[in-house]
Amino acid sequence: MKTEILYGIHPVYEVLASRRRNIYEIYLQKDNQSGRIDRLASLATHSGIRVKTVGSGYLKALVGMAGHQGVAAKVDPFPLTAISDILTAAEAKGGTHFGLMLDNVLDPQNLGAIIRTALCVGIDGVIMPKDRSAPPTPAVSKASAGALEHIFLSRVTNLVQTIKHCQKSGLWVMGLDKEADRSLYDSDLTGSIALVLGGEQKGIRPLVRKNCDFLVSIPQLGALDSLNVSVAAAVAMYEALRQRQMNVECGMRNAERKPDDKGS
Amino acid sequence: MKTEILYGIHPVYEVLASRRRNIYEIYLQKDNQSGRIDRLASLATHSGIRVKTVGSGYLKALVGMAGHQGVAAKVDPFPLTAISDILTAAEAKGGTHFGLMLDNVLDPQNLGAIIRTALCVGIDGVIMPKDRSAPPTPAVSKASAGALEHIFLSRVTNLVQTIKHCQKSGLWVMGLDKEADRSLYDSDLTGSIALVLGGEQKGIRPLVRKNCDFLVSIPQLGALDSLNVSVAAAVAMYEALRQRQMNVECGMRNAERKPDDKGS
Repeated sequence: MKTEILYGIHPVYEVLASRRRNIYEIYLQKDNQSGRIDRLASLATHSGIRVKTVGSGYLKALVGMAGHQGVAAKVDPFPLTAISDILTAAEAKGGTHFGLMLDNVLDPQNLGAIIRTALCVGIDGVIMPKDRSAPPTPAVSKASAGALEHIFLSRVTNLVQTIKHCQKSGLWVMGLDKEADRSLYDSDLTGSIALVLGGEQKGIRPLVRKNCDFLVSIPQLGALDSLNVSVAAAVAMYEALRQRQMNVECGMRNAERKPDDKGS
Repeated sequence: MKTEILYGIHPVYEVLASRRRNIYEIYLQKDNQSGRIDRLASLATHSGIRVKTVGSGYLKALVGMAGHQGVAAKVDPFPLTAISDILTAAEAKGGTHFGLMLDNVLDPQNLGAIIRTALCVGIDGVIMPKDRSAPPTPAVSKASAGALEHIFLSRVTNLVQTIKHCQKSGLWVMGLDKEADRSLYDSDLTGSIALVLGGEQKGIRPLVRKNCDFLVSIPQLGALDSLNVSVAAAVAMYEALRQRQMNVECGMRNAERKPDDKGS
């Protein structure tokens, strides 16, 4: 089976913590021992994983670049999650769905930053098309500070079909679109929802946009009107978290979406 | 006078739009003409600025790196703004103060990302210590998508003194601290405020933290508890914007801070 090389302290620590991938070997740089790396080595040894001390040249060649912080791990490829499993897991937790869909996010840094925030707000799963999107590489794990090792991530062939499937499963699908008249802050983000964000250059594709139940915008003042996609994602996810936590505290609950109910 | 080399389409476009720096010359790469660069050249020529077409080797040497997107500009150093001018400008606008203080933000990418969002929410000015902080370099302008060219930015010798000065001027100073018991969402962010954020590694320094009126945290669920600083800044600034816009719409207004009034 194909393996890949994770690198950086957070990704290697979190792949050990999450135990979702087989870990074949961990590599530590000889002259770069910090307290954090010592703890990591100890954790690996306790988990029965072989730890190999190597020179910096070996590590750089293994990783294919600098920026590895003196640590790498040979692991199985990132374990994708099926959409149905994301939906089932959320239902098993007994709560409402809270999904995130990304269309055209091409930059591994942005994808990593979004996944890091997604984990912090308790997103059920991140859904992306197989093409037109950055794959969940070790660079994404690094950019996510290891959050990738914990998040459920699904890559789908046809995002529009997935949106329709989610709608049938009772989710409201809300697209972020800076041209939308309705503000994020005037929108009900409680209940079962999936937020849809477009990428750096092209945003949400027209057919994806058309299939959203609502389009909402983030208010922007000032001379420029362009938030970074990872910032826009964070603002939207945190506003949803705020509303959802308030909602629980108030003991209110939105009506569930009926199958094939149409948004206005 | 010292000059510096701005690079990238957004920084050069925004330095032309903001007209806060003298622009001595604009450099365009010979073989890299896009529609956006054509518009930029036309704008520069209309403003009476000399445009020079150069080879890619010349441009790379001028900028000192790749990633210039085929455009650079020789300009005056970034124009800093005095604290008193930031406060006066906000008062002249007739509204309440909405400031942002950064302590220990060392990474130009993070500083740029924060400034980009700060401009989008209408922050009066960004205040940073002269040491322990990334200076407003061309790399920051690039990372801010040119927002640096519009934002008011002040570099101060002693951030604690500046906090005291702002408090005397009627601002509530709110520090973001992930250990704080009080949630951002349970905090009143209307009225005159300055948000204080710490940097990537060390966060807010103890004496700075001690001088804040309140400490508030951003709720975090999930396996990790670390938001990127630019994401934390965006979430806090947007929650403030949300409350402030709601406040205006409701016609309510918080009581003004009395001189030397102490927060609880």
